[in-house]
Parts: sequence; structure tokens; C-alpha cells
Amino acid sequence: MKATTITAISTAPGIGGIAVIRVSGIDALKHSNAIFVAKKKSFSLLEQKAYTVSFGSVVDKQNEIIDDVLVTVFRSPHSFTGEDVVEISCHGSLFVQQKILQLLIEQGCVLAQPGEFTQRAFLNGKMDLSQAEAVADLIASTSASSHRMAMTQMRGGFSTELMKLRTQLLNFVSFIELELDFNEEDVEFVDRSKLKALATDIEQLIARLSDSFQVGNALKNGIPVALVGETNVGKSTLLNLLLNEDKAIVSEIHGTTRDVIEDLVNIKGITFRFIDTAGIRDTKDKIESLGIERTYQKIEQASIILWIVDCTQLSEHMEWLTERIAKRAEGKKVILVFNKIDKIAEDEREVLDLLFQQFSGERIYISAKDNINTEGLQIALVLAAQLPEINPGDVVVNNIRHYEALQNALTAIRRVIEGIDNGITGDFLSQDIRECMHFLGEITGSISNDEILGNIFGKFCIGK
Amino acid sequence: MKATTITAISTAPGIGGIAVIRVSGIDALKHSNAIFVAKKKSFSLLEQKAYTVSFGSVVDKQNEIIDDVLVTVFRSPHSFTGEDVVEISCHGSLFVQQKILQLLIEQGCVLAQPGEFTQRAFLNGKMDLSQAEAVADLIASTSASSHRMAMTQMRGGFSTELMKLRTQLLNFVSFIELELDFNEEDVEFVDRSKLKALATDIEQLIARLSDSFQVGNALKNGIPVALVGETNVGKSTLLNLLLNEDKAIVSEIHGTTRDVIEDLVNIKGITFRFIDTAGIRDTKDKIESLGIERTYQKIEQASIILWIVDCTQLSEHMEWLTERIAKRAEGKKVILVFNKIDKIAEDEREVLDLLFQQFSGERIYISAKDNINTEGLQIALVLAAQLPEINPGDVVVNNIRHYEALQNALTAIRRVIEGIDNGITGDFLSQDIRECMHFLGEITGSISNDEILGNIFGKFCIGK
Repeated sequence: MKATTITAISTAPGIGGIAVIRVSGIDALKHSNAIFVAKKKSFSLLEQKAYTVSFGSVVDKQNEIIDDVLVTVFRSPHSFTGEDVVEISCHGSLFVQQKILQLLIEQGCVLAQPGEFTQRAFLNGKMDLSQAEAVADLIASTSASSHRMAMTQMRGGFSTELMKLRTQLLNFVSFIELELDFNEEDVEFVDRSKLKALATDIEQLIARLSDSFQVGNALKNGIPVALVGETNVGKSTLLNLLLNEDKAIVSEIHGTTRDVIEDLVNIKGITFRFIDTAGIRDTKDKIESLGIERTYQKIEQASIILWIVDCTQLSEHMEWLTERIAKRAEGKKVILVFNKIDKIAEDEREVLDLLFQQFSGERIYISAKDNINTEGLQIALVLAAQLPEINPGDVVVNNIRHYEALQNALTAIRRVIEGIDNGITGDFLSQDIRECMHFLGEITGSISNDEILGNIFGKFCIGK
Repeated sequence: MKATTITAISTAPGIGGIAVIRVSGIDALKHSNAIFVAKKKSFSLLEQKAYTVSFGSVVDKQNEIIDDVLVTVFRSPHSFTGEDVVEISCHGSLFVQQKILQLLIEQGCVLAQPGEFTQRAFLNGKMDLSQAEAVADLIASTSASSHRMAMTQMRGGFSTELMKLRTQLLNFVSFIELELDFNEEDVEFVDRSKLKALATDIEQLIARLSDSFQVGNALKNGIPVALVGETNVGKSTLLNLLLNEDKAIVSEIHGTTRDVIEDLVNIKGITFRFIDTAGIRDTKDKIESLGIERTYQKIEQASIILWIVDCTQLSEHMEWLTERIAKRAEGKKVILVFNKIDKIAEDEREVLDLLFQQFSGERIYISAKDNINTEGLQIALVLAAQLPEINPGDVVVNNIRHYEALQNALTAIRRVIEGIDNGITGDFLSQDIRECMHFLGEITGSISNDEILGNIFGKFCIGK
């Protein structure tokens, strides 16, 4: 338990009907009681039962009433942080919120760091590290799928899988280390082929979790789609069209700003993250410039490429470009989007198709300006995304820190399997297994350090 | 009691650590219970005691968990609205907030209109109309004084004063109407001179309340200060300087935006509202243009005029302007601000003073660009404001609706006094007294109509 008592405004910043100020720590009740006056004269928050709400006023040192409030008492260990917690529900005035915070600080509370409440919940054993991280993901979730992943993880779905793995590995390493104790006698307690079967099972489990990152990351951060094309082919018009399609969804959610969901668009339930690229200039001698290099880099970051071509402005080096982009986009879905299709005659389409005959991927004919076949493009995007559906309870890795730890664990367990094949000694096997366990432990936080914790909780909002 | 059960997100819009969704009405417990699952199997919110908090999950119809939440139960009449109320405290994710709201609506809740919770509190007799209005003022309060006024009013300070007045008037009118019953006998139960003394007392009380509006309005909305001057005299620089001085205060308060406190500046605890005006052009023939007319209008809206003069650019018609502006600014405080004072020599100052010898008000010499004597200007502003200090509990009128009602009541009570002086008959006196009572009743809402209520509560935020 920490010695300090922390406080922060836990509701969204700004003016609202009500706001909630949270206090957590050994003196949470004492400090809150010092600024709280109930109607009953002999009232004390310190005597209130856990999970009860009291009505009264917050007063300052001159006994001036700051606000009429509701105060909820939680008692250690049955609270979010595991400590004594008080939640003060006041009117959502900026002045009132700040004033109450100030009064609590005058009493001896310390302003909470971002994520400090959740960090204390972790330190007090209320949740493991992957669950704590899921709290932040849950708060940031804006779509059904990102919410579902966070919820599963917060409720321990991921931790359960990892616990199973660690138990299996622990059994494994125990036998091997037992052998080491009897080293001079050269015994083998465990059949190496059985060990290998077990290691292979574990390897597959880790690989499955690790593989789920691609989906998890796409669901959490959006599937990266690069918009590529020459200048003035209508990329911006198309992007705006796709973003506008989303306006109905966005406006349903209060307070979402472009900062939060910048260039993210929900199309039929899937989040896409559109990466705009500098238009490629239609000049042969400049084609190898920095601009196109950067566009190539963005292509590499994307999973899907929307290559937009202006049907009315076909440049001479189109074929050459096709080849180059196709090469960079290897393993990615490329959708060739013919824009301004309403501006050309039927027979010109044949010329188009001839020009792009080398291109084997999907082709869509649209007009971004006149909103022709946007629906077709959206369907093509959803098909290209090829995301498996996530069901409630499915464990999906969506955190790069977890992914890296799993990758390291995978390397270690593969060394174990290789070691068994090569008949290496138990002490080396044991070392690799311990390493694998170490990396899995990093995910749940059973192995952690201040730097890792600082990184994780620093990204939280204040008040959580 | 209304038949519908309403719900809304009551905390500030946006992402936060936690958010609170409020449900009020006869089915608040039933609808909340339908989406809530506690750990205990036989748990039901309907059986929970008032003022208790339960931990559990919100689930959708497919039993998928949406969030882990805390649910607080309040029971009629001991709640904010006077109805059964449930507050669901969830994680502050946009998705989660919207989803829970949606689930409640699917159960049969109706999305609350702005201020509808407070309106129900009023309709259910939990507070009178002036107290309900104070709730909105309290939420909007950003300074100690505006907060103090709202708090006093919300806790019934204003209502108590009005109640006293109405009781006195009721006694008054009862005697007179008693006389009317005995009309034919031509009795006078009450000495007319005593009646007049009472009416004069009441008149003074109403006048005092009504007079406090000037202070109350200034404290609530800021004291209007017009910045007047020719173009390029440094008005913008000065305004920015004054606004920047305030940055420290503004940034202490999360989420305040220019939308909310546009051009409001707290200087030494007093809120000033700066009204920028179009610069007056230094051309004789254009001086009577629309621009200066508009500037004149703005001068009339202001209590304080900052007339800014560029010491290095004295135009020929300065004297003429001084006269004109002084005429428009009659009864207002005018502060003559000599800007760019560091750019002129000592002897040039004498020329300045000579040029403005007709001007009898305060003069301040500053440099907005080099931040010379800004402090002096601030002190001059505070002195010009001449605001009496508001103490906790002081009743101050800060609402234009109340002010208008008080003005009407004042007219009526003055007619009563005049009537006594002129010896008019009891039935006319009674009519005027009833009218005075009517206007006082409009303030507390004992007399109200849907239009008035719609106007008042429509300005609230949703969720309160």
C-alpha cells in the first residue's frame, strides 16, 4: 500500500450536469470527511458503511458552502484500487470541480498522475498488467469490436490463457531442474519426446496468440489503407466522401474530435485508417524523387492499397508505375480505383483495361465527385480487409507490447524444441524455458519494472 | 409525477476515466435492473435500499458484457428529481456510454431533454423555479463570485426573501379584501397610513433586490468593457495582453474553451467582458460612417470604456472625437489609455495632456507591446468596476427574467402607494397588490407556464 492519498477529477474534462472526483488511499475517508458536512450533526464519513451514498455539502475552511454533493464510500480491499476510496459527485461546474480538488489537496491529498488509480489497482493485486492495460483500451474504444477485445482482456480472458501456458511451462521446467539436481547420476525423468510434444503445443498456443495481433491491431487501430495516385486524380474528394459517409456515426457520439479518430472511418463495422500520400507527379524525370519514395514507404505500412486513377488523364508512364507499385505492394491487397468514370465513353473503358492488363487485382469504377459506386468501393474494402469475426470471449492480442513479448517467448520456446531435437543438456533447456516464462510474465506484470509501468500508465487519462 | 422514465449521460461529453448515466422515473429501477447483472445470482436492483451502491455488469440482450459498472439507487421522494433515480457509473468510453444509453432506451427509457431532470425536480416540488435556474448558473459558474451567487440562490436564499415579501403582501391584501366584503358598511379595518408604511417597506425591499441586478449581472456575465480607438493604435495587442494575463487562470481549469469564456478575463477576482470595436478610421470624411455608429452602440452596451490612443500617431480630429465619445459615454467610466508611451519623449507628453485637457477621467500611460504598466491599467479597471463585495448568503439578482419580474412588481407596488395617497378604493388597491404578488410568483415558479419553463430548461445541458 502506498502512503499517499491521491485525488483527481475522474469524469471527462469540461462542463457537465455532474462531475465525479475520486479519492483513493489510506486517508481517503479522513480527508473527504474534513471538507464534508451532512445534515445530521453527528455524521462522520469514517463511520459510513462501504457501498453507501451520503448527501451533504462540501465546505471550505471559512465554512462557505461550495456545493451540495453525493459522497460514496468504498472500503479496502473492496474498491477499484483496493484502497479506501471516496467518490464525490458534485455539480459539473468548472469552478466547483477545481475548488473541491483544491480543498482535498489542502487537506493533504496529492493530485493523481495519469492512470495512477489503475496503477494502484495493479500494485494492490486487483488486476494484472494486461487487465490494467485493457482499462485504457476500454476507455478509448469507439467501435463494437475494439470494445469487445478490451472487455475480454479486462475481465481476464488473456490472463487465463497466459496462466495456463505458464503452468505448463512450470511443470516442464520443474522436471528438467529436478534432473539437474541428480545430474551426476545422469537420470532422465521425462521422456524427451513427450517433452517435445508439450513444447510444440505451447509453441502453437503462443503462435496463435501472436498471430492474432494482426487482426487485433487492425481492429484497435484501424486497417491501414494507403491512397495512392498521381496528383489531381481525386484522392481528396474520395477521402472526404469516405469520411463524410461516416459523419452520421461520428455525430452520434458526443465530443469525438478529429484528434481522436483522425482519418479513421467505420465502414460496415470495420475501422479503416486512411493514409493519404503525396500525389505522384506526372513528370518522368521527377519520378524517382523523395516524394515517391515516401509514398512507397506508406505503401509498406498499409494492408490495403487504393490506387486511384483518373480515367480522363492517363499518363504515359502508367504501365511503368503499375509495375513499380505492384512490386512494393507485394502481399498486400491492391484495389485499382478508376475515378471520373462518368466522364469517358464506353469504348474508352476498353483502352483502360488494356492499359492495366498486367494488373491482376480488384478493379472498381467510380466517380468520387458525383458519388457513383462509392458503395461498390466500400464493399471492396470490407472484402479486402478479410477480418475474421471476433466473438465475445475470444482472446485477441491488440497491444504491441504484448505482441513483442509473445514474439520473444516464441523465439525462446522454439529454441527449446530445437534443443530437444539436438539433445542439448537440461541446464540449457531450463534456461530457455525460464526465458519464455519471463516474457509471458512481462505481459501480466508478474515481471515488471518502473520504466515499463511508467510507459503504460503514463498513457492513461487523469482520473483513472 | 410524469409517466415516462428519462435517461441521459450526466457527466461532461467526451472520454473520461468514468462517466455517469442517470435514469429517473417510475420505471428507473425496473429498466436499469433489466440490463444489470450482479455477481450474486438472486440479486435485483428493485430490492436494493436507497443510497446504496452495487457492483456488477451491464449486459446486452445477447448477454454480452458491455461494462463493469457501479449502480446507485435513490428512491422517491428522496432523490434529486423526487422520483426513483438510478445512477450508472461506467468507464468513460464513448462507445460504452452510448451503448448503455441505447440499452436503456431499448428497455423503454426516453432520452432526457436538456434540463429535464431539474425540471422534474421543480415539478415535483423539490425546488422552486429560481432554485432550478440557480442549478444552471452553478454549473456555468467559473469564478468565485458567480459561484457564490448561484449557490446562495440554489440553497433558497432568494426564495426566502421573496416568500417574506409575499407573506407581507398577502396579509396586506387580506385586510383590504375583508374591507371589500363589508363594503356597504364603509368600514376601514386598517389604518391607511400603516398600510402605506408597510407598502413602502416592501417597495424598498423589491427596489434593493432589483438594484442588485446591476452587480449580479456584472458578476455573472462580466463587466462590459468597450475597447475604443482608431485603427492601429494597439487595441488587439492590448486585448491579447489582458487575455494572456489570464492564461494561468484559464489553464488551471480543464476543458475551458474560448467558446465558453470568449473574451472574458478575470482580473483580481472580477470578471470583465471585453467588447472589441471596429477601429475608427483616421479620415475626416468617413468619420460619420456606419463603422463609428456601431462603435457608438457598443459604447452604450459597456459600463467601462477603454479609449486607446497611440501616442505616436495623434490625428487632427482627436479633440473632436474626444468630445463625441465623451457625450456617448455619459454616466460610464472612461479610461484614456495612452499606448506606446515608451516611444515618445518627456516633453511630448505635455502636448498630449494639452490635447486631451477637456477629458476629465482617468488617464493611464502604457506600452501594450512592451508590457509597460499593464498592472496600472488592471488596477484602473478594477477601481472603475466599483463592485461591492458579495458575501456568502447575500441575495443578489443576476437573472434577467427575475430582474424584469421585480421591475414589474416594483411598478405595481408603487401604484399601490400612489393609490393610498390618492385615497383610491380597496378593490383597485387589491388588484395592484395581487399583480405585485403575481410577478413575484413568476420568479419562484408558483405562477408559470409551459413557454416560460421551456425557455428556462431548454438552456440547460443535457443530463441535468
